[in-house]
Amino acid sequence: MFTTFTNNKTTSMKPINIKQKLEKFDKQWHPHQIATVDNMQVILAKIQGEFVWHSHKEEDELFFVQKGTLFMRFRNVENPENEWSETIHEGEIIVVPKGVEHCPTTLEGEEVHLLLFEQLSTKHTGEVAHEKTQTAYPNI
Amino acid sequence: MFTTFTNNKTTSMKPINIKQKLEKFDKQWHPHQIATVDNMQVILAKIQGEFVWHSHKEEDELFFVQKGTLFMRFRNVENPENEWSETIHEGEIIVVPKGVEHCPTTLEGEEVHLLLFEQLSTKHTGEVAHEKTQTAYPNI
Repeated sequence: MFTTFTNNKTTSMKPINIKQKLEKFDKQWHPHQIATVDNMQVILAKIQGEFVWHSHKEEDELFFVQKGTLFMRFRNVENPENEWSETIHEGEIIVVPKGVEHCPTTLEGEEVHLLLFEQLSTKHTGEVAHEKTQTAYPNI
Repeated sequence: MFTTFTNNKTTSMKPINIKQKLEKFDKQWHPHQIATVDNMQVILAKIQGEFVWHSHKEEDELFFVQKGTLFMRFRNVENPENEWSETIHEGEIIVVPKGVEHCPTTLEGEEVHLLLFEQLSTKHTGEVAHEKTQTAYPNI
């Protein structure tokens, strides 16, 4: 599947309220852009259950948990059975370095709210094409 | 005054708790680095009172209020009497675009806790040298 990734740069000099922005959408696994900083963007996402194993070859990715508990699974691309995980609570951040395979997950059906900080060019599921893959993030 | 700005890149795959990191320092106007994402960094700062008017010629700067209320003053570099401000509450973000003169301020002696996203190269007070200027941010 060939996809064009089309996030644009936006600049606002007004306060952006995270909770109010999170009320603007319900769809899970559909990131929405709320701000940009140079070539980076701030996006919000609501997730529940298990995402898709993927990595971003050239880009780090920061996850900041706004609500709930994120269970971030990692695995070694050369030895996929070597899997480990980190538990990230509300008010905590984790950075996934470039090239590291990861699979954001939530436990026991909890909906988790995330703020992510990543490059405008970062693709949702890296080079993996999946039914959950989004090819652009609406600005809200 | 010639200063070398020396923030380094760090990568952690462990959760980073914002409140716990904020407990690790008391000094106001002294940013501390808690994470990096590609060429950007996440820093924490405690501020009280008025900072220094400055701008960053090439870099946007994001402020995310973790505690208290930030009063961000702006002015037009070509007409400094043209001044305005925005009030940013806890849980809110503001992005200061590159080239825009700003002066972070708190009201009525309140200590405000900030999380900032900015480039590793972004200087504390832009091209302004001031007694408050820090030339490196300790990693905590």
